[in-house]
Amino acid sequence: MNSGKIICVGLGPGDPDMMSVKADRLLRNARHVAYFRKRGHPGKARQLVNGMLHAEVTEYPMEYPLTTEIPHDDPRYVAQLSDFYLGWQARLTELARGEDVIVLCEGDPFFYGSFMHLYVRLQQEGVVPVEVLPGIPGMVGCWHATGMPMTWGDDVMSVLPATLADEPLRAHMARSDALVIMKVGRHLGRIRSLLTEQGKLDQAWLVINGTMSDEQVMPLRDAPERCPYFAIVIVHGNGRRPANDM
Amino acid sequence: MNSGKIICVGLGPGDPDMMSVKADRLLRNARHVAYFRKRGHPGKARQLVNGMLHAEVTEYPMEYPLTTEIPHDDPRYVAQLSDFYLGWQARLTELARGEDVIVLCEGDPFFYGSFMHLYVRLQQEGVVPVEVLPGIPGMVGCWHATGMPMTWGDDVMSVLPATLADEPLRAHMARSDALVIMKVGRHLGRIRSLLTEQGKLDQAWLVINGTMSDEQVMPLRDAPERCPYFAIVIVHGNGRRPANDM
Repeated sequence: MNSGKIICVGLGPGDPDMMSVKADRLLRNARHVAYFRKRGHPGKARQLVNGMLHAEVTEYPMEYPLTTEIPHDDPRYVAQLSDFYLGWQARLTELARGEDVIVLCEGDPFFYGSFMHLYVRLQQEGVVPVEVLPGIPGMVGCWHATGMPMTWGDDVMSVLPATLADEPLRAHMARSDALVIMKVGRHLGRIRSLLTEQGKLDQAWLVINGTMSDEQVMPLRDAPERCPYFAIVIVHGNGRRPANDM
Repeated sequence: MNSGKIICVGLGPGDPDMMSVKADRLLRNARHVAYFRKRGHPGKARQLVNGMLHAEVTEYPMEYPLTTEIPHDDPRYVAQLSDFYLGWQARLTELARGEDVIVLCEGDPFFYGSFMHLYVRLQQEGVVPVEVLPGIPGMVGCWHATGMPMTWGDDVMSVLPATLADEPLRAHMARSDALVIMKVGRHLGRIRSLLTEQGKLDQAWLVINGTMSDEQVMPLRDAPERCPYFAIVIVHGNGRRPANDM
């Protein structure tokens, strides 16, 4: 009875030339394409495939419920999101009984991807096969935008959400050689202060929309007061020497 | 006078279908292709493009000097490697005066890539343009091989070379939610002990040749005594809740 599957495709950092050969092929042939978006927005993932989709495609924008007025730890927020995921779990499953459904995801879907909440539900249910295709993570596009190697030799690299409290951020900044700080947005000032305190401000870069046509790269010390939510701060490793040989 | 450039192409984790559209296009049209290899070996990067190169390609295997008998902190080792890089810097520059030269690199070239030593020298010299194309890092292929999301929400992810001493490994293992431990090789037993000590053995996976035809994935607790140098240990994040909203 099942003839289709759900395939979540990692789109990479933004430049369509950076998508995988397989992602490109699947997208151009897809008849059913779903993607998350905020109400009133075109959807970031959808914009990355502009001009690539088949003439006979049907699109399924999965619009997040409007929750800005409810705090994220409120049970009503959790209930609304849960209903949203349950609804799309049922809808995608129904579609995939007939044909393949492609779900778009920026970067790499397994790396902070929004599809993962649906993925674990669909896997647990086990009614339709679900595949996930890797993509170049957004952070990789961002370190390429700086034109400098990210890690060498025995460097430790840590990926830190800027939303963490000062204490864990400080500890990771002190111990790691290379840093990727995600979701910088309104935490920009605090991240700048913490990196200054750790003596790393002069090695830090701010990258906005890495690899996209509106890419912006600047030393963090020259950054303006405000930046978008998805901006990334990069501190490159300098190549820690291996403690032992291989 | 210059008409060519040097382009280092990230080949991704192994599966040719996971190369970027641009990497695939450049490789199939390239007339000059260089890659690192150990003497007596075909070269890992070269094997990834088997069957893809143009009939009229010229290949330039860049063979590392034989150094197994010299300790890596010996000045003779440093001098031999330095001569090796200087020689290829001159050779690639000469070639690129005529036509583009493609340099193959597994994974993402800026992420622990072997081309970086040549890259910084070529950039400093500034005689020929040098470009580097991102690829899906090997670790991304490895976490996809486990079929489970790597990071969610506010997870911290750290990338650790297994060659580090116990103390820094222990500190990062304790503080980070998700872990990628690289170059496991002969450190397998020690990594297993340290993860056991941190209560993380049961969440750890060993991945060998992720996304390749000979891929092996197993819980670390079931791993044999020995594994290849390039094996990776993965500990998935469980989705730390954001401390603040966006």
